[in-house]
Amino acid sequence: MGFRLTPQDTGFYDLFSQSAAHLIEGAAELTAILGAQSQDEREAIAKRMDEVETSADESTHELIRKVNSSFITPFDREDIHGLASALDDCVDHMDAAADLVALYRIDTFPKGVVKQVEILSRMAELTVEAMPKLRSMKDLSSYWIEINRLENSADKAYRRMLAELFNADSSDAITVMKHKELIDELEAAADAFETVAHKIESIAVKES
Amino acid sequence: MGFRLTPQDTGFYDLFSQSAAHLIEGAAELTAILGAQSQDEREAIAKRMDEVETSADESTHELIRKVNSSFITPFDREDIHGLASALDDCVDHMDAAADLVALYRIDTFPKGVVKQVEILSRMAELTVEAMPKLRSMKDLSSYWIEINRLENSADKAYRRMLAELFNADSSDAITVMKHKELIDELEAAADAFETVAHKIESIAVKES
Amino acid sequence: MGFRLTPQDTGFYDLFSQSAAHLIEGAAELTAILGAQSQDEREAIAKRMDEVETSADESTHELIRKVNSSFITPFDREDIHGLASALDDCVDHMDAAADLVALYRIDTFPKGVVKQVEILSRMAELTVEAMPKLRSMKDLSSYWIEINRLENSADKAYRRMLAELFNADSSDAITVMKHKELIDELEAAADAFETVAHKIESIAVKES
Repeated sequence: MGFRLTPQDTGFYDLFSQSAAHLIEGAAELTAILGAQSQDEREAIAKRMDEVETSADESTHELIRKVNSSFITPFDREDIHGLASALDDCVDHMDAAADLVALYRIDTFPKGVVKQVEILSRMAELTVEAMPKLRSMKDLSSYWIEINRLENSADKAYRRMLAELFNADSSDAITVMKHKELIDELEAAADAFETVAHKIESIAVKES
Repeated sequence: MGFRLTPQDTGFYDLFSQSAAHLIEGAAELTAILGAQSQDEREAIAKRMDEVETSADESTHELIRKVNSSFITPFDREDIHGLASALDDCVDHMDAAADLVALYRIDTFPKGVVKQVEILSRMAELTVEAMPKLRSMKDLSSYWIEINRLENSADKAYRRMLAELFNADSSDAITVMKHKELIDELEAAADAFETVAHKIESIAVKES
Repeated sequence: MGFRLTPQDTGFYDLFSQSAAHLIEGAAELTAILGAQSQDEREAIAKRMDEVETSADESTHELIRKVNSSFITPFDREDIHGLASALDDCVDHMDAAADLVALYRIDTFPKGVVKQVEILSRMAELTVEAMPKLRSMKDLSSYWIEINRLENSADKAYRRMLAELFNADSSDAITVMKHKELIDELEAAADAFETVAHKIESIAVKES
């Protein structure tokens, strides 16, 4: 292994990987809550999701403490802050979605919701895979291109769901409200993943 | 014509005028969608509005590229950024409103909506007329005073509409939800025009 | 009294106290509107609340003018700006909540609303008591710890209310929408008080 002028920076990349790992856990809990068989099970999953969110918060704070106490950082302090809090936002929206399911006792889902959560799961995997590449800032373009593509397809699915939701003859208004809030929150999660990709793209452009 | 030290700055004013021109196109599509006779027609107009939004996005990006690559700018880089993105927000909200009409298949409108769109059209005209005055920063106060006046009247109309919407005995809840989202989006567009005027006011105060 | 190098700074603390005083007035109007006996009375209270909001706006502008015209400020200009506008946000949300009550002609309240307003009243008192301590930056930790505790209990009450609201068999959808907007706005006010406490905490950490 070659000589490194700034060995103390290594920790940042590990912390970003650790922070991103919570995204996969979050997406797994969302997948689980859609398949849950009872309100008790949904509440238990929402509680586990809250724990994922708490761990993600701790990772974010550790990153920010490290930025504030480090003399040298691998890239701009402001960019590290921005990326850390963008990752945190993804978990927050996934957590809020799980909370809505349990709180509103949603037991049947508009069919597009499964598709939304599948897209979030794939976005989480891609984001985790991108983290180690922050070190070299190389080979990241396929990541952000794929995230953008997924976000576009999430957006199309979202709009189709809204149209179906509001134009279905059968649905009662309270159910429409509950479902609207859930699919809005899942769409916000997809947007948050895209924001992460945008931040990484702009950091890569600056640093290269 | 006198000697100019910074002839390369001219382009910025043209780009701002070009960017603002999309506001008038957007307001015209909104006016059209309210008078449309069928869902097909509404969808065609919403599609044209998406094209206006794409063109507006391109103008914004051109402005931002020009800021990033120019050595000298006519006013603060941050202010150019801010004004460009404030103009873009106006189009985004008008586009979102047209999308809602098509998506939710809204075919009758609360009566105040026509008034809201008339105010937006007038705001768009005033904003376009203000752009060439950025060069001298003179005679802009009548622009921002009139925008503020219009925004106040938009706000009053908005609140009256909400009260009518929620207190009408006849309306079904799904229709209330659709109409609420539409008038919220139009109100957000009026707020966005006011934000543009505030930015121009603060730039004029700084530069004069 | 000892020698002070920067006697001109005194005004800032008085302005912060003056700004915070509007929070108590706002919370008192909210308490009053819940107990009002008629729509006329609710509209009169909402109007008084608008006046509180206007006065709070003026205090904020005075603070910002003072920052912009002062050579020396007691702490970072940006932090003064941030704290002034965070205080303003608390009043804005309380004003918006009172407006909703009058506008939507809400005459019965979900039972948790009284609890929400009690928490806001306590938060307002604590915030006012904290202002004079900005001078020494001492003894503030009990303030922000108590605000955090209150915000957590507000959050729990909020979530319980949402669950009850959406799962009650009896309620009609339009009433659910009105109540949802009201409790959302009160929850946003509690969040705004927590933001004030966070800002004060971070200023105290920086300055000590």
